[in-house]
Amino acid sequence: MYELGVVYRNIKRADGDVATQLGALGSATVHEAMGRVGLLKPYMRPIYEGAQVGGTAVTVLLQPGDNWMLHVAAEQIQPGDIVVAACTTDNTDGFFGDLLATSFKARGARALIIDGGVRDVRVLTEMQFPVWSKAISSKGTVKATLGSVNIPVVCAGGLVHPGDVVVADDDGVVAVPAALAAQVLEKALAREAFEGEKRAKLASGVLGLDMYNMRGPLEKAGLRYID
Amino acid sequence: MYELGVVYRNIKRADGDVATQLGALGSATVHEAMGRVGLLKPYMRPIYEGAQVGGTAVTVLLQPGDNWMLHVAAEQIQPGDIVVAACTTDNTDGFFGDLLATSFKARGARALIIDGGVRDVRVLTEMQFPVWSKAISSKGTVKATLGSVNIPVVCAGGLVHPGDVVVADDDGVVAVPAALAAQVLEKALAREAFEGEKRAKLASGVLGLDMYNMRGPLEKAGLRYID
Amino acid sequence: MYELGVVYRNIKRADGDVATQLGALGSATVHEAMGRVGLLKPYMRPIYEGAQVGGTAVTVLLQPGDNWMLHVAAEQIQPGDIVVAACTTDNTDGFFGDLLATSFKARGARALIIDGGVRDVRVLTEMQFPVWSKAISSKGTVKATLGSVNIPVVCAGGLVHPGDVVVADDDGVVAVPAALAAQVLEKALAREAFEGEKRAKLASGVLGLDMYNMRGPLEKAGLRYID
Amino acid sequence: MYELGVVYRNIKRADGDVATQLGALGSATVHEAMGRVGLLKPYMRPIYEGAQVGGTAVTVLLQPGDNWMLHVAAEQIQPGDIVVAACTTDNTDGFFGDLLATSFKARGARALIIDGGVRDVRVLTEMQFPVWSKAISSKGTVKATLGSVNIPVVCAGGLVHPGDVVVADDDGVVAVPAALAAQVLEKALAREAFEGEKRAKLASGVLGLDMYNMRGPLEKAGLRYID
Amino acid sequence: MYELGVVYRNIKRADGDVATQLGALGSATVHEAMGRVGLLKPYMRPIYEGAQVGGTAVTVLLQPGDNWMLHVAAEQIQPGDIVVAACTTDNTDGFFGDLLATSFKARGARALIIDGGVRDVRVLTEMQFPVWSKAISSKGTVKATLGSVNIPVVCAGGLVHPGDVVVADDDGVVAVPAALAAQVLEKALAREAFEGEKRAKLASGVLGLDMYNMRGPLEKAGLRYID
Amino acid sequence: MYELGVVYRNIKRADGDVATQLGALGSATVHEAMGRVGLLKPYMRPIYEGAQVGGTAVTVLLQPGDNWMLHVAAEQIQPGDIVVAACTTDNTDGFFGDLLATSFKARGARALIIDGGVRDVRVLTEMQFPVWSKAISSKGTVKATLGSVNIPVVCAGGLVHPGDVVVADDDGVVAVPAALAAQVLEKALAREAFEGEKRAKLASGVLGLDMYNMRGPLEKAGLRYID
Repeated sequence: MYELGVVYRNIKRADGDVATQLGALGSATVHEAMGRVGLLKPYMRPIYEGAQVGGTAVTVLLQPGDNWMLHVAAEQIQPGDIVVAACTTDNTDGFFGDLLATSFKARGARALIIDGGVRDVRVLTEMQFPVWSKAISSKGTVKATLGSVNIPVVCAGGLVHPGDVVVADDDGVVAVPAALAAQVLEKALAREAFEGEKRAKLASGVLGLDMYNMRGPLEKAGLRYID
Repeated sequence: MYELGVVYRNIKRADGDVATQLGALGSATVHEAMGRVGLLKPYMRPIYEGAQVGGTAVTVLLQPGDNWMLHVAAEQIQPGDIVVAACTTDNTDGFFGDLLATSFKARGARALIIDGGVRDVRVLTEMQFPVWSKAISSKGTVKATLGSVNIPVVCAGGLVHPGDVVVADDDGVVAVPAALAAQVLEKALAREAFEGEKRAKLASGVLGLDMYNMRGPLEKAGLRYID
Repeated sequence: MYELGVVYRNIKRADGDVATQLGALGSATVHEAMGRVGLLKPYMRPIYEGAQVGGTAVTVLLQPGDNWMLHVAAEQIQPGDIVVAACTTDNTDGFFGDLLATSFKARGARALIIDGGVRDVRVLTEMQFPVWSKAISSKGTVKATLGSVNIPVVCAGGLVHPGDVVVADDDGVVAVPAALAAQVLEKALAREAFEGEKRAKLASGVLGLDMYNMRGPLEKAGLRYID
Repeated sequence: MYELGVVYRNIKRADGDVATQLGALGSATVHEAMGRVGLLKPYMRPIYEGAQVGGTAVTVLLQPGDNWMLHVAAEQIQPGDIVVAACTTDNTDGFFGDLLATSFKARGARALIIDGGVRDVRVLTEMQFPVWSKAISSKGTVKATLGSVNIPVVCAGGLVHPGDVVVADDDGVVAVPAALAAQVLEKALAREAFEGEKRAKLASGVLGLDMYNMRGPLEKAGLRYID
Repeated sequence: MYELGVVYRNIKRADGDVATQLGALGSATVHEAMGRVGLLKPYMRPIYEGAQVGGTAVTVLLQPGDNWMLHVAAEQIQPGDIVVAACTTDNTDGFFGDLLATSFKARGARALIIDGGVRDVRVLTEMQFPVWSKAISSKGTVKATLGSVNIPVVCAGGLVHPGDVVVADDDGVVAVPAALAAQVLEKALAREAFEGEKRAKLASGVLGLDMYNMRGPLEKAGLRYID
Repeated sequence: MYELGVVYRNIKRADGDVATQLGALGSATVHEAMGRVGLLKPYMRPIYEGAQVGGTAVTVLLQPGDNWMLHVAAEQIQPGDIVVAACTTDNTDGFFGDLLATSFKARGARALIIDGGVRDVRVLTEMQFPVWSKAISSKGTVKATLGSVNIPVVCAGGLVHPGDVVVADDDGVVAVPAALAAQVLEKALAREAFEGEKRAKLASGVLGLDMYNMRGPLEKAGLRYID
């Protein structure tokens, strides 16, 4: 359950270096290293291609059509943070634009992940302030009803605690619990280590069927080849 | 983040009486008493009308197209429980049908809340085993990949911990954290107390504008009446 | 464009008898009599089956997550009216429940058409106060931001002016401009006149192909029969 | 690829008795007997609850907003048939209403499966002519552009050939190729045979975990129980 | 209600200079200047990034799967116009491609806004003829059923009269009633005037909380800070 | 109905040159040449802009959340093929990434068409291996359940047989039955022949109304011009 009308000022952030390194590995690798969990729904899309970030979460709970809490959140941002905004209901309004982005950037935020809409996307692109959102919309919002800052939120189907690591790129957005970040990084790096070798084999024409020894299991599962 | 491949056997359930009473008050009243949070997304619909339940959550995390964990969950059910099933990805397959319902009912489950599909809905209706789901589908599932039982899950956008109170009726599904259940019940009862009085006034023709003293705030907000 | 923060008190309603008669003919017949226009999108569904109404529109423009204007609208209702509520953005919150329904009914409203959510549907069904909505949701709303009452609104893709005739049944919702209501009624009655005869013919085995003389036009369009 | 502007008059229908028996077994059982394939998408919903049918497919390909081909199809209906209508594009218009239903019924049709909209649903319910559709809509259609009758169609994601067996109930719609109908019936009956026994065991409290011998495979897959 | 089968030849266009200036200000600023109304739904997306236009509306009502009226509309285009096309029902077919774009451009049209599909998007991008649409689809259309040109239309949930100003960019599409265009321009320019100053303050680290004096209202609303 | 657990090794491919030429003509032209059928649903979008391909189909049927069959399919790829992957149910998981793309490319595949999700889109773009998909998602998949390779599949609403020609570009994806490929090419080329001439006329200001002789049919259909 969400606690409304509160701002937690002292949150325990995951290690910033770990967050940055996880960002560099990308959402697919991190998601695999977590055992294929932690992913936000794929309707979350970047407003421009090619952005790839890792950072620590400052979370926000918004009310529909109301961006008041994004202003409150700005004060809680520290360099290396990524703001993760959920909403109490489905809403595609343009909660965030170039002015808030200017403020967020001045505070050191690396990105915004918002289960809602965003606007001024051309300027945001020029500023290179990346946003992953459910929608793009010119629709402005009011400042009338309280939500919260730095409580655990469900954003696009994913649970994010303040201080968690967030990794986002063209493939989507993954949240890594702060307590697991170091361990996930280790697994992700291990996973990454063999990618180059695998890619070379596959590029040379070796089949995954052979490289992964799948022929036996497939036969056992009953696969039949018909000529 | 989800922990995969685990079953927590000893969960701390909210008080059963409180759960039953919250169920009798209904999802809208409980949702208001919680400060308008805690609701699952409105795409969750009952398979038949008129069911209204409250109970304690046994949670399940499913893999797409795979209902293995529902069988595992059955063993963890105690009388008065409601099974809450999430999935690692969007999926509408028919994870649950009359055989599992027979088993769940024999164990004392009051309902299933599933962010996926269900089948045999005619038999389930005859059995009066209520299900709130995202979809109805004949599509059967396999038993091949592990999920988990009794870990915190995000089901239809709502966070549910094992042991939480779940309230479901024709209006939707609300989750109440176990620790807050008694306090939410108190608020909900207080809220309910004045409903009859209000209804009588409104039925007699008194306007909400007057009963709630809205005319002043509306004028202050700038509302203009034009003849 | 919507004018915000205004309530038009004196609207010109279509003739009440005409509205009632159009309601009795049903949405499909009225829609055909209008030349196949005027229909709201088919996502608008009744909260219970079998309701069929015709009435004159009191229109409301809501803000997302805010039902203040429904209270304002209640005062403008006259017997025989149907409230038609649009929202400035997509929103499925439960703007309307049994208390507002009690008030609307006391004022003489016949139904609510709302491009948003509704709750307390079991009580509404018991009260037999019909609602056509986009969603059913326990999610409550605030009273913080102005919309308007009795301005032209776009509700579920259909343009509705205050005073227009609204016809709603299990097939959907149609809006008929006040100025055209009498003429549409005439056409709808004429259309209805031949239905019984046609139905009898078809029931006896006569094909539409012959009854409507379609064989020639089909041949001309190039239809080929292959044995 | 669809062939346009043609009507195949002589189609090879599956055995009518087999179709009827498959209908009595229901879509979930038939779908399982087919190896969990053959299902139309779950957005196909019955216009009223409780209908359950099996029959042989007369297929129709419609153009958007145009129901001409349904009239052409009526002539091709034989007693025991179910009309399966696809459309060249997504469309929710009300292609079918009580007059066409009267005609279809007079020809011996058992149901309509339509990847589009339907109207007059109250009358269709009174007539007990079941329809599974994507939408309900008052929106009428024209008769201007040719489609086809009795060509293979993709309806709601399922491939249906003229003469195939179609099974529909509250759980959804399944298509069974004519050539496999007898064999699928045999498997479905075998499957059905053990249902009663299983249900009795589960009702007595036996767990699926034991009845299906799942404990070993679960352990092997790595499932851990935590107290 | 839509009038079908008519073409209004003499429409009163908003001032072309005003339309051009509004276009330069962009949809978000114009939408705010209108009091946060007038926006088309955010599913309307540009076929390529970076286009930004303002112009006067020539409106079209299409029938599903039929682009006849776009040819009729071409003749009504004057330099500086933007064609706004609605459809009597939801439809994603490719109503518009490079040939029509060539014709529209030759007539002086600046853009197409279509609540439907478009095709030949690569060529349209090369031509730099911007289109905002609901979908991209190769699906061709027929020329068989009448709609109308230059009647008021509801396009993507927004009401557009012929002659209205339409502003479209990467953030979305806004319609400004012709009668209000000059006044909206004034407000939008005033709004724009302070943007630079605000941006500079925020970039220097001043918080919106302070710049907009939000701390008092937040405290009054009950916001609590927790350390 | 789908046959599960089989791989057809010897499929009859359409002529490779014909496939390449159809690819060069593009999906809209080919779709028109087929009589406006054969198109996959428009939710299938390219992961990057500007790709345009034609090739012969190797088909795959996937299970939800399981990409085993893509590895099996890799072995069946011949130079000039396009892999077309369907799924037994709606699923957006990331079935395909840069390793499989490396393998597919090494085998000579020209593209992947998948009614599901894809990941590593930045690397795929760098590799210039085009994919048309329903979603982009980091969500990984398992290898546990059999589907099939080279059976007829319904992919995004379109029926594709192994060996069919597939044409994909920014406008969408079209499947051409192998037996009709040569004939469709002929029609498409004929259609293309007149495009340049038409474009020149329209660019010079000639109206489609006159070029296509539409004025008579429009008048006959009842179109009225109002000054």
